[in-house]
Amino acid sequence: MGCKFWGSMDVVLCCFIALSLVHVSLGAKARHFKWEVEYMYRSPDCLEHIVMGINGQFPGPTIRAKAGDTIVVELTNKLHTEGVVIHWHGIRQLGTPWADGTASISQCAINPGETFKYRFKVDRPGTYFYHGHYGMQRSAGLYGSLIVDVADGEKEPFHYDGELNLLLSDWWHKGVHEQEVGLSSIPFRWIGEPQSLLINGRGQYNCSMAASFSNPAVGQCKFRGNEQCAPQILKVQPNKTYRLRIASTTALASLNLAIQGHTMVVVEADGNHVQPFAVKDLDIYSGESYSVLLRTDQNPSRNYWISIGVRGREPKTRQALTILNYSPTSASKIPTSRPPVTPPWNDYNHSKAFTKSIYALMGSPKPPETSHRRIVLLNTQNRVNGFIKWSINNVSLVLPSTPYLGSIKFGLNHGFDQRSPPDNYDSSYDIMKPAVNQNSTQGSGVYSITLNTTVDVILQNANALAKDMSEIHPWHLHGHDFWVLGYGEGKFEDGDEKRFNLNNPPLRNTAVIFPYGWTALRFVADNPGVWAFHCHIEPHLHMGMGVVFAEGVHRVGQIPREALACGLTGNKHN
Amino acid sequence: MGCKFWGSMDVVLCCFIALSLVHVSLGAKARHFKWEVEYMYRSPDCLEHIVMGINGQFPGPTIRAKAGDTIVVELTNKLHTEGVVIHWHGIRQLGTPWADGTASISQCAINPGETFKYRFKVDRPGTYFYHGHYGMQRSAGLYGSLIVDVADGEKEPFHYDGELNLLLSDWWHKGVHEQEVGLSSIPFRWIGEPQSLLINGRGQYNCSMAASFSNPAVGQCKFRGNEQCAPQILKVQPNKTYRLRIASTTALASLNLAIQGHTMVVVEADGNHVQPFAVKDLDIYSGESYSVLLRTDQNPSRNYWISIGVRGREPKTRQALTILNYSPTSASKIPTSRPPVTPPWNDYNHSKAFTKSIYALMGSPKPPETSHRRIVLLNTQNRVNGFIKWSINNVSLVLPSTPYLGSIKFGLNHGFDQRSPPDNYDSSYDIMKPAVNQNSTQGSGVYSITLNTTVDVILQNANALAKDMSEIHPWHLHGHDFWVLGYGEGKFEDGDEKRFNLNNPPLRNTAVIFPYGWTALRFVADNPGVWAFHCHIEPHLHMGMGVVFAEGVHRVGQIPREALACGLTGNKHN
Repeated sequence: MGCKFWGSMDVVLCCFIALSLVHVSLGAKARHFKWEVEYMYRSPDCLEHIVMGINGQFPGPTIRAKAGDTIVVELTNKLHTEGVVIHWHGIRQLGTPWADGTASISQCAINPGETFKYRFKVDRPGTYFYHGHYGMQRSAGLYGSLIVDVADGEKEPFHYDGELNLLLSDWWHKGVHEQEVGLSSIPFRWIGEPQSLLINGRGQYNCSMAASFSNPAVGQCKFRGNEQCAPQILKVQPNKTYRLRIASTTALASLNLAIQGHTMVVVEADGNHVQPFAVKDLDIYSGESYSVLLRTDQNPSRNYWISIGVRGREPKTRQALTILNYSPTSASKIPTSRPPVTPPWNDYNHSKAFTKSIYALMGSPKPPETSHRRIVLLNTQNRVNGFIKWSINNVSLVLPSTPYLGSIKFGLNHGFDQRSPPDNYDSSYDIMKPAVNQNSTQGSGVYSITLNTTVDVILQNANALAKDMSEIHPWHLHGHDFWVLGYGEGKFEDGDEKRFNLNNPPLRNTAVIFPYGWTALRFVADNPGVWAFHCHIEPHLHMGMGVVFAEGVHRVGQIPREALACGLTGNKHN
Repeated sequence: MGCKFWGSMDVVLCCFIALSLVHVSLGAKARHFKWEVEYMYRSPDCLEHIVMGINGQFPGPTIRAKAGDTIVVELTNKLHTEGVVIHWHGIRQLGTPWADGTASISQCAINPGETFKYRFKVDRPGTYFYHGHYGMQRSAGLYGSLIVDVADGEKEPFHYDGELNLLLSDWWHKGVHEQEVGLSSIPFRWIGEPQSLLINGRGQYNCSMAASFSNPAVGQCKFRGNEQCAPQILKVQPNKTYRLRIASTTALASLNLAIQGHTMVVVEADGNHVQPFAVKDLDIYSGESYSVLLRTDQNPSRNYWISIGVRGREPKTRQALTILNYSPTSASKIPTSRPPVTPPWNDYNHSKAFTKSIYALMGSPKPPETSHRRIVLLNTQNRVNGFIKWSINNVSLVLPSTPYLGSIKFGLNHGFDQRSPPDNYDSSYDIMKPAVNQNSTQGSGVYSITLNTTVDVILQNANALAKDMSEIHPWHLHGHDFWVLGYGEGKFEDGDEKRFNLNNPPLRNTAVIFPYGWTALRFVADNPGVWAFHCHIEPHLHMGMGVVFAEGVHRVGQIPREALACGLTGNKHN
């Protein structure tokens, strides 16, 4: 049965039916959701502001599915003047690149009043999440959890009795539009540190759950439990094993999580099984997810702090706290000792030790032994016409108004810069110092990658504009997982590839570069489409810190016309 | 030469050339502007917030043209996630209904990164302005002046030596997105009174130009003159006649303007000449414009206050002030007596006396003696599913995502409610009391008007939701001027039309209804297109206080495809 999505309505309908049949034939389930995105008043950290929510909920509803299921989200934009998209973070969108939910890349933003149907398969179990991917709408609160269980008859390679879910985020009292304007103003106005950290959308700005241990003191929070900022208590039974799913959709903050008196065993990272290892605390960067196993083996007549603190930046934001509540102890019983202390923000050795402890579980797919292409991406902070930007190989990314997926598919050369950005940077560049020439350019060019080739990406960190300053950046790849082959200090040099871990590198979709260091990734470009690869810090992406990979777009078929109803593709009739 | 705009690019190009030739042949000028709309940091009332500006200016650049000119504005949307349109308030858009700049009515909102070309003729001299017409972007600061002088060789029917321009607005410290959300929330959150009134985008929130006369006292403003909130001083020569152009684009406030020690002679209203009459102060409602002649016949060794105060609502906002500065007196010389006192906010007799003094200048076009249709529009405040709304004949307007102009032109019946809203309301309705049944419905239906017929509209005010409460609403009609045939108290009754002024009613595009009263308008539906008619108070329109008139849409040709690149028309190929 031949299908032509970019055709008349009845043809679309025919294809729709055909697809449905395919899913039925696989025996997996299609899970339908009708969502409305809108701003609403909410008190995420006890102070009232507007947040972007879904169906009146913040964070948005949790999607729960089984591997092999098809998710269908009919997303209606109920915002008044803003477009919207939703990215399904960690889902590779095999065969459905138009459903990746990245404005200007995979689709046009959905106009106010309109509905777009996201339809994609969740092929692998894991801990994922979704979030806005247009402007800084993730910062505005547009996010939620997406959890995929193993398919019926399948088993995880670990046992657990119960499950808990923590979606972590950070929150500003200044609205995102004002944040955006400040980032693209002269003088530059940085968004500053978050006012609050949120656990499942809940934090406490003007009081503390652990006031008696605080210094400086703030008042003790008093909750009846129905407040929008009341912490979600994690109720557990003694002597059981819980799977704690943790994902970070922070706009900025790198986090450290600890559970008082408990050890955690890491078993999953970004939807991939890892060699289990035990930790007292865990670093998590924006865009990452983990599962840890938690044994409730402590005194059940007490409760225990779960604490989240800031890493990698001077922590001007108080820890977020909630309580691990052992049954039958009362949930309102405050732990009698102070919450875990977050490691010093600049103790990078602690962070590196954790990150480098992550290996793929035995039996996981191994990377190809060699790659066809190496792309070295130098991360620098620059100026473009006086505006502060982040640049990759001296190009600061600006997104075009016509989505790349359409421009490339239909050969619309005016859709974006036709010159590809460089695969490397000037080898004389001194990454340890501010750039001699701090000027950069803006561009919308893409890296064209030959389908089914293996690509190595070396993310190279450097000094920022200010002296003695180099930041952590968590880079997230759409449409693929990559193997993290290694981390190094200073500049990546020819020969460093000999130290790559080709034996058991973890598969992930997000990996950090540490200050003044490099991180080596390898992926197979086997997913026809156009894919963002970018720093997951929202203001950094907004300031141009990303690149775009295009692979095998000629092989992409049947793009739903409503994905491309804007810009140069809006009037395209093929 | 046949033109088909909705065709291929080369056909569009051919038409473009053809149109250019037409303009050249008329001898009038095409005035080209390239504008970029973006948010920027600004201190309109001395406190810094983000405002929506154009080319870095707030208010936007003033357009100055001559009658018969063609204005071409290439508007690029540099906002990050919001669409944008600009409405040319008072310009009838004869033959160019797609250039009226009303989102969902005349065109699709322009997407971020895209450019839309507004091209329209300013056929008549007058004092006009332009502003955003999507969501509450006018409240965000998207506005500016549009002044059309008489054509070469033509003369105004009055003399003046110089000209001054005052564009009046109001300003909130809370952002418009938050305002919007509050208006569509349960519980309802009213935007409240403005923090400041602005004259040409400048006001003073935390100080006063006339502190020594203030009660309660605030500090005296001290300006070097280059502050963004420093008042624009009106410099005049003694013993001259000035034309003072005054337009109000307030979101909410009805205003009263007075110039200390001076009499003003009103000569123009909404682009139409009026029978000159002298006033000591002048009421101006949102959407209105006036020209007054000002004789600088006072002691030239002094300066004089120009004051703007709130009418019709309890004035919780301080007067806006600036100075009429007689040359060669120093501009920094503060007037020695207190600024004019705004009439009591609820002195409606004062307001009515002013409004009813406005008559068309002798020789102005007279209305047809009779009308073909009478539409009575009852204005009520209601609830819809618990949300507070404004309704017209019990229908609260919601705008569709596909612009009416496209839906109607191409017969897309799913574009909006096909049932027309009613031409009248239940005659038993008691306008003096809150409604017995306060529930209303939402709808997107239009009033279809037979082309070239004459229509009477009776705007009927009523009690709002609260007891003993009826507000002023300035109604603005797009695409036409109307004659204001009369005002009455209480309910309009059959027979009241005998009192209509058919002799010299003023032609206007905006007219108020006073509390518990009615206002009768007449217009000729001679402009093919789809036209909004609505309360010009921004939050009231947002709450549904408007209707839509469609006339002769079958006669509308050559709609530029970029005007309809969204919704159901986005994929239309004819």
